[in-house]
Amino acid sequence: MVAEERVRRAVDRYMEAWSEGNRQQLLDVFAEDGEMTDPVGTQPLVGRKAIGEFWDFAHQDGEKTITHRSERIVVCANEALLEFVIEVRLPNNSGLDLRAFNHFVVNEEDRIQSLRAFWDESCMTQPEGMDLFVPDMG
Amino acid sequence: MVAEERVRRAVDRYMEAWSEGNRQQLLDVFAEDGEMTDPVGTQPLVGRKAIGEFWDFAHQDGEKTITHRSERIVVCANEALLEFVIEVRLPNNSGLDLRAFNHFVVNEEDRIQSLRAFWDESCMTQPEGMDLFVPDMG
Repeated sequence: MVAEERVRRAVDRYMEAWSEGNRQQLLDVFAEDGEMTDPVGTQPLVGRKAIGEFWDFAHQDGEKTITHRSERIVVCANEALLEFVIEVRLPNNSGLDLRAFNHFVVNEEDRIQSLRAFWDESCMTQPEGMDLFVPDMG
Repeated sequence: MVAEERVRRAVDRYMEAWSEGNRQQLLDVFAEDGEMTDPVGTQPLVGRKAIGEFWDFAHQDGEKTITHRSERIVVCANEALLEFVIEVRLPNNSGLDLRAFNHFVVNEEDRIQSLRAFWDESCMTQPEGMDLFVPDMG
């Protein structure tokens, strides 16, 4: 069992990696064989290589900024449920806010063993005073 | 794969069972071998008999009302993430609001195969104008 503070720290490091654009930190916070499913219902990405490719895909448009803002976290044993907002911003005054949930399972080495994201169309809103950015889902 | 509307209906029936005090409906919405973990980190209750005992424990004080109010639901494939508030009220003007998350997995017969609840002390608040009710956690 990992302690509550260690679970919180893993989630904080994950969020910080996105907000600071730190790819290496994102990979480091996952276990070697960690899994990421985003959103739930799609194929899990297994291992750091696959997770790194997901990062690269999200950042393929270099002009985009992607900020993860935490709203609320509940920690139960070695798991966490996070409510958060992804703020996507483009220099042409367009953007997208995605209010989503992440479920984390943290292992005994303080790394994320599993991340599963819950979001659907109802989670997407247009930031005030901006045009709506519609992401290319590939 | 169950369709989105069927997942929503299972969650609605679960919430309605609590709000209407309908024990039979609660048991019926679970699979025979359904599992309930409340909160995550405690031992899962497996099967309708164990879930019925949980219901009875929650209702042992007959003067208490327990309302489940849905705040937001996100459905992904055959899973749902629900943000909700449990409003516990006692006739002596005491109460408790618990703002929690439930993760549901719904099977192909539209029944709940797994329910896992995420809440901790940070989720508990004292309703305005009432004394705080502190539940007997057994």
